[in-house]
Amino acid sequence: MNMQVSSFIPPVRTLMGPGPSDVSDRVLQALARPTVGHLDPTFIGLMDEIKQLLQYSFQTQNALTLPVSAPGSAGMETAFVNLIEPGDTVVVCQNGVFGGRMAENVKRIGAKLVLVEDDWGQPVSPQKLEDALKANPDASVVAFVHAETSTGARSDAATLCNLAAQYDCLSIVDAVTSLAGSELRVDDWGIDAIYSGTQKCLSCVPGISPVSFSDKAITRIRARKMPVQSWFLDLNLVLAYWDDTSAKRAYHHTAPVNSLYALHESLLVVKEEGLENSWARHKANHLKLKDGLESLGIEFLVDEDYRLPQLNAVKLPAGMTADQEATVRGRLLNEHGLEIGAGLGPFAGKIWRIGLMGHASSEANVEKCISALNDVL
Amino acid sequence: MNMQVSSFIPPVRTLMGPGPSDVSDRVLQALARPTVGHLDPTFIGLMDEIKQLLQYSFQTQNALTLPVSAPGSAGMETAFVNLIEPGDTVVVCQNGVFGGRMAENVKRIGAKLVLVEDDWGQPVSPQKLEDALKANPDASVVAFVHAETSTGARSDAATLCNLAAQYDCLSIVDAVTSLAGSELRVDDWGIDAIYSGTQKCLSCVPGISPVSFSDKAITRIRARKMPVQSWFLDLNLVLAYWDDTSAKRAYHHTAPVNSLYALHESLLVVKEEGLENSWARHKANHLKLKDGLESLGIEFLVDEDYRLPQLNAVKLPAGMTADQEATVRGRLLNEHGLEIGAGLGPFAGKIWRIGLMGHASSEANVEKCISALNDVL
Repeated sequence: MNMQVSSFIPPVRTLMGPGPSDVSDRVLQALARPTVGHLDPTFIGLMDEIKQLLQYSFQTQNALTLPVSAPGSAGMETAFVNLIEPGDTVVVCQNGVFGGRMAENVKRIGAKLVLVEDDWGQPVSPQKLEDALKANPDASVVAFVHAETSTGARSDAATLCNLAAQYDCLSIVDAVTSLAGSELRVDDWGIDAIYSGTQKCLSCVPGISPVSFSDKAITRIRARKMPVQSWFLDLNLVLAYWDDTSAKRAYHHTAPVNSLYALHESLLVVKEEGLENSWARHKANHLKLKDGLESLGIEFLVDEDYRLPQLNAVKLPAGMTADQEATVRGRLLNEHGLEIGAGLGPFAGKIWRIGLMGHASSEANVEKCISALNDVL
Repeated sequence: MNMQVSSFIPPVRTLMGPGPSDVSDRVLQALARPTVGHLDPTFIGLMDEIKQLLQYSFQTQNALTLPVSAPGSAGMETAFVNLIEPGDTVVVCQNGVFGGRMAENVKRIGAKLVLVEDDWGQPVSPQKLEDALKANPDASVVAFVHAETSTGARSDAATLCNLAAQYDCLSIVDAVTSLAGSELRVDDWGIDAIYSGTQKCLSCVPGISPVSFSDKAITRIRARKMPVQSWFLDLNLVLAYWDDTSAKRAYHHTAPVNSLYALHESLLVVKEEGLENSWARHKANHLKLKDGLESLGIEFLVDEDYRLPQLNAVKLPAGMTADQEATVRGRLLNEHGLEIGAGLGPFAGKIWRIGLMGHASSEANVEKCISALNDVL
């Protein structure tokens, strides 16, 4: 190779897109502590603490609560390939990009997909879900996104999971953007399978997906007729390593040791602040951002009742083209070191997504964002 | 939760097991640099450099060369689910734990498995492979492990890949433990699909799997009749993000940004040393370790011709029981801060695996290991 390569020194950014969010120095320091073996007794102790901290963050007593060693997309796939077999009927509620990804998972498993569609930017309609469940009495799973990262819309997870249970379905919930950023109660809401990501409101480095499964979900997994199609994501095998009731941890794959140091620290930050306090902080900073954006004449995409405080999807200023919006984001990045997110899919070139997630949800960041937008618009 | 949790401060270990290996301060510092977005222009530049550095480390010009955002097991699954369809016939050569995992992948895809077995500790037999290929003219893929991490045996990858090509099969090669630790030439040897891990001879943090695919392999993937069963590992989708010939990088999943900083730095270390120099260093330190172990009366499991310098599998001292060997490893860890590896599967309680991988392959570590073993035996 002829190229000249040197160490990569990243610029310092303020990350107010749809994730990754700013990672605090405290978490980066934890990340960089010396690597130990994945079977080291001290590391096994760390795994137990991570499990308990995740149970707190998810508000669950689920024994099967652990971090999958890969990003949120793999957490999604873990839920789908373990709970669904070829030929099963699965209802997926889609109101954005990530519901579409759920549907793609169902198809690749060879299951029958029942798609319940709502407009992007709207929450999932419980009425439409109930209609679909009535029309498909053989459905065994209902899946939806709690906090649609592509639109900033929050759906009513408690109501949707309750409907799923009424019709004898397990529920799979995407909480990639909601965990620690807005109210989420796995046990109270009757969620059977949930997955999230580390790079949103936990403000940890990207690459890990916390998941949790109810006892009903475990029973379903144990009763499978066919093996899980993915060896890497087979919970029967992963469990043998994460099961803290077993004296002997069976090796499955080498855990991402340093990323788990960082996850532990970021979960500890959430616990120290208190989950409800974290939700309240996200809400308060969202309201400040809202005032600032409105003073610039910028409107929200989502109705007030369903807005995610951690992910503010807003319409472009009147008359702005896709090229112009890319230029604005480029100037924010280059002149202000500020990253905000573009639209995805049908919203590309039509909206911005301004994240106030985890460590990045601060009054200072709200002010920085409004002032920078004011400068470049 | 009632538990008291505080920040995790890991002990400082010398990692001479089968991986993870010691991560240098230089790589840990790179890991902890501030997180940027996965679509940041500077990060896209980093991705291009990682690709070129991986091409150098693999000794390949393959355009499809990238790090999978998950551990080596996921790299294995990436190769299998992309190159194999249900109903295909696949020859897997098994001479240890990881060949068995390959077979498991084939079964879960719904392909026909032809297993070629060799004794654990022996290399894969080219004659047995050729017999199997003659007996199964419909075979489309041959898979084997170049460096069996469970036994320390090296197989002759060039000969095996040549046989695969003669019989119109693509080759899938597990190089988790070999990459950067012993000779490996993807293009010269005609390897069609290869995967490795970051936590062995690259001495990077665990959690990422470098992979590379030949043009023949890409043609096979493009000609698939069925979609890849894994959305997360579908190379058609992953490529849209990693394709450096495309001006627009399509979002697939959020890249593990900080782990890729570390991978970049660890690959840079390899390039600075020079690949051949790295192979020679692993060999020289292996020979020193061999002298020391033999002076303690400890024998190798694998014949000299097939020994991996980076992973030294040795028999327990005569008469030592499984309980006693666990005690020895515990004392090495607790009294000397030294981790060596236990046996896996049928070798559990029967062998030790002493790694001299990457940054951990040093004269000082050889001396530390021999002196610590001498103390506790």
